[in-house]
Amino acid sequence: MSRQITPQSSQEITLNSDIGESFGAWKMGADDLIMPHIDCANVACGFHASDPLTMLKTVKLAKQHNVTIGAHPAYPDLVGFGRRHMALKPDEVTALIQYQVGALQGICAGQKTEVSYVKPHGALYNDMLSDGQQFDAVCQAIAALQDDRHEPLPLMVMATPENDAWRHRAQQFGVELWFEGFADRAYDDNGQLRSRSNPDAVHGDVEAMYAQAEAFATGRAIESVSGKSLQIEIDSLCVHGDNPKAIETVEKLRSIVRQANDNE
Amino acid sequence: MSRQITPQSSQEITLNSDIGESFGAWKMGADDLIMPHIDCANVACGFHASDPLTMLKTVKLAKQHNVTIGAHPAYPDLVGFGRRHMALKPDEVTALIQYQVGALQGICAGQKTEVSYVKPHGALYNDMLSDGQQFDAVCQAIAALQDDRHEPLPLMVMATPENDAWRHRAQQFGVELWFEGFADRAYDDNGQLRSRSNPDAVHGDVEAMYAQAEAFATGRAIESVSGKSLQIEIDSLCVHGDNPKAIETVEKLRSIVRQANDNE
Amino acid sequence: MSRQITPQSSQEITLNSDIGESFGAWKMGADDLIMPHIDCANVACGFHASDPLTMLKTVKLAKQHNVTIGAHPAYPDLVGFGRRHMALKPDEVTALIQYQVGALQGICAGQKTEVSYVKPHGALYNDMLSDGQQFDAVCQAIAALQDDRHEPLPLMVMATPENDAWRHRAQQFGVELWFEGFADRAYDDNGQLRSRSNPDAVHGDVEAMYAQAEAFATGRAIESVSGKSLQIEIDSLCVHGDNPKAIETVEKLRSIVRQANDNE
Amino acid sequence: MSRQITPQSSQEITLNSDIGESFGAWKMGADDLIMPHIDCANVACGFHASDPLTMLKTVKLAKQHNVTIGAHPAYPDLVGFGRRHMALKPDEVTALIQYQVGALQGICAGQKTEVSYVKPHGALYNDMLSDGQQFDAVCQAIAALQDDRHEPLPLMVMATPENDAWRHRAQQFGVELWFEGFADRAYDDNGQLRSRSNPDAVHGDVEAMYAQAEAFATGRAIESVSGKSLQIEIDSLCVHGDNPKAIETVEKLRSIVRQANDNE
Repeated sequence: MSRQITPQSSQEITLNSDIGESFGAWKMGADDLIMPHIDCANVACGFHASDPLTMLKTVKLAKQHNVTIGAHPAYPDLVGFGRRHMALKPDEVTALIQYQVGALQGICAGQKTEVSYVKPHGALYNDMLSDGQQFDAVCQAIAALQDDRHEPLPLMVMATPENDAWRHRAQQFGVELWFEGFADRAYDDNGQLRSRSNPDAVHGDVEAMYAQAEAFATGRAIESVSGKSLQIEIDSLCVHGDNPKAIETVEKLRSIVRQANDNE
Repeated sequence: MSRQITPQSSQEITLNSDIGESFGAWKMGADDLIMPHIDCANVACGFHASDPLTMLKTVKLAKQHNVTIGAHPAYPDLVGFGRRHMALKPDEVTALIQYQVGALQGICAGQKTEVSYVKPHGALYNDMLSDGQQFDAVCQAIAALQDDRHEPLPLMVMATPENDAWRHRAQQFGVELWFEGFADRAYDDNGQLRSRSNPDAVHGDVEAMYAQAEAFATGRAIESVSGKSLQIEIDSLCVHGDNPKAIETVEKLRSIVRQANDNE
Repeated sequence: MSRQITPQSSQEITLNSDIGESFGAWKMGADDLIMPHIDCANVACGFHASDPLTMLKTVKLAKQHNVTIGAHPAYPDLVGFGRRHMALKPDEVTALIQYQVGALQGICAGQKTEVSYVKPHGALYNDMLSDGQQFDAVCQAIAALQDDRHEPLPLMVMATPENDAWRHRAQQFGVELWFEGFADRAYDDNGQLRSRSNPDAVHGDVEAMYAQAEAFATGRAIESVSGKSLQIEIDSLCVHGDNPKAIETVEKLRSIVRQANDNE
Repeated sequence: MSRQITPQSSQEITLNSDIGESFGAWKMGADDLIMPHIDCANVACGFHASDPLTMLKTVKLAKQHNVTIGAHPAYPDLVGFGRRHMALKPDEVTALIQYQVGALQGICAGQKTEVSYVKPHGALYNDMLSDGQQFDAVCQAIAALQDDRHEPLPLMVMATPENDAWRHRAQQFGVELWFEGFADRAYDDNGQLRSRSNPDAVHGDVEAMYAQAEAFATGRAIESVSGKSLQIEIDSLCVHGDNPKAIETVEKLRSIVRQANDNE
């Protein structure tokens, strides 16, 4: 059974990472290197990446490292890696969420573990917070999956200064939100991620990344690209581990987050 | 909650049909016409047919008619409708079974119903009984899905004179088999379905079909193409309802089976 | 060799229809019924519908009825039938147009016939006229396909009151436009198709349909939903033949168009 | 225009490599490193690997390095990388060959270059030489693609001691064969590649690889795993360049082949 993680009650910040994004013969990421260093694995479900056998291997690896497993459902767009907006209707979104979460639950059941949360991927992740109808469809899909013995799975979304409004909206469906922040990405003054079309969208300087992680982890405000102070609460920090060098960064981020957690 | 069907304990014969095999904009079958007349719906899971939204609508329809839902997993071959043999390794088969059963379970959970059995589709259905390794992979996949509170899902396979041998093999995995027969298909002397490459593979005469159904339903021997007597035990009769005329046949088959069940 | 159609020089209006939209085991449309009645077949290329073998059969049927073959490329979205907007970059659009046109050319070469024009499908068809960048990407893709011995393939687009502006834009790439109108669809005052979300989007009355077809075919203005007079020039009329009843309508539309052509 | 390569008339051995096997966001191989060192690129066509935009980039790279472009069609099995046998009917094979070759021709036309030969991939490559019907379907597909101004595209197949029999069979369709050998693979006594299920299927020792390449290039017999002398004529040597270290090997193989070609 995977570790139980309840970010909000414990106030502890977790590290999460997108995992299991290989597809058939194609490898992506260094899952075996990063898995020992994270708390939560967002596992691809076959629509933007992965396939049944890759999912099975990914779940085994997560279980071996005692990492909490989340479903990472996406638009049906393998060639675009789920990053391209698609104009899906809300009932299509509901169905594809339930399909993908269920598929990962099937794979997890086979390994005697389980899915503990849902984090939509790519364009679906973005569309969800820019289109209330899609957000509701995702919440409704997740809420409907619950049975008598369980709460609905938590939903991981991007942390912004509007956390409370989204938390309130999700509560209508009985769905708890987990808010995640990004250490390596710059934020605009409005608290949104700075678009990758800008040269300063990603922190090239690791010290800036560590400073931002520490601010997030200790509950202090971060700084926007223009120097504005932004108070954004997070439950989890998203990290990337696609090469050995990235793993060093993850280890450092983990120590920052752990120290902050210990000081709570 | 869907009706509980336990063919072997009750000795009642059920009617099952392949259902939900539309795909996106393409319709197949007359699900709304046949659903009221069957006991068990083998619901396509997106690999040979169907898609998340079609599955959702199919599950709703099955629940509305109180029809037991089975997963109908297949090889990943939409364009070939899962009918073409593919050389998959056993671990690939295990993973795709768990993925597809899980996906349908996700859709069912959203509708407060559940998957009650598994019937592989097309080439996978055939390969399973001609390749013991694949049969074991299917059984192992199903067995591993069970949790502490449930028995493994039953597996529906083709009834032949070798039922006992297959039942014994499945029992190694704790998996119960449901054996199905075909009213409209001729059988070879060895108890296998006569290949569709022969002109007499399908009973053109409805009276022959009804006679075969009645033999199956009452536990009497059926007759092979060459007139040989074949004793084949079944738990379920597979019917096809792809057009309004076919529905009449299904209604007649149902009355034959019901009368036999009542006389038990 | 397929019939040469040059709408603009001859001033003759053609009938075109979306054809070959079956997929694997799923049938769509009544291609064999409508093919004898049309001039131009927009043949699906495998991204929103069809598959290599279906394309081969479709091309054979078109050639048998001396119907001009057009490529009908689409976004890569089988489950959504290419009807859902996808946010593709212009170079992705260029590549998918060339891939799909080339694929159909390969199938045509095998049948000693050829592709004579291109009509994008569904969401790509719509996006092309609402996003100049995508229009340019389509034109650029088509223009680049030409060799020394041929003009670029003509591009079929929706006729609107802005035909001249689009024609001018396409000429920058050396691409000729064929403008198509719809007999069965209502037009808004701005000359765009009335959205299907409105109850009056489709002419339920066949007489209204025939009147609109005759106006298009004789170069007279059509009437918008609000009664406004709209002068829209067309080269081709798009017809649908998905059932036997629809075929009767197509035959009537053909006689309307022929009579108008003869009177030129 | 790509370099014209006519192996048999010139008696020169070429180097070929499978190229363009990335897919969407997933990278495979080091195409930019190996392209400068090969003569012929077997370019994936979207069924086992690649996608339209990847194909476009691959064709650009091949043209830039003056490398002859071949189509590398495969079974429709992305998740299995086209390596899994699928039971396709001959007309399905014919159609998928023409579709994929045509698709690559479309991409090539857009770059003002062309497809010069066909080499089936993976399971299709293997099945073709073990199933005469599939071989004929491939030849027939290629022959039908020719127009009045060109010979059919040559077909690249595995060189074995039975080259003459296959050459004769292909000639019935007017299709020229290019035979390829493998420097890094061991051969069984019957002249077939040793199955990868054996530990000695691949030459671990680079000297053994170079010796085998030199024997192939100079027309001498190679040695089977059991030491038997095998006379196998080749037109092309297949090389792999999936990492920087492999590139060194390719460079050495190229010098071996060039020296042999110069001594002809």
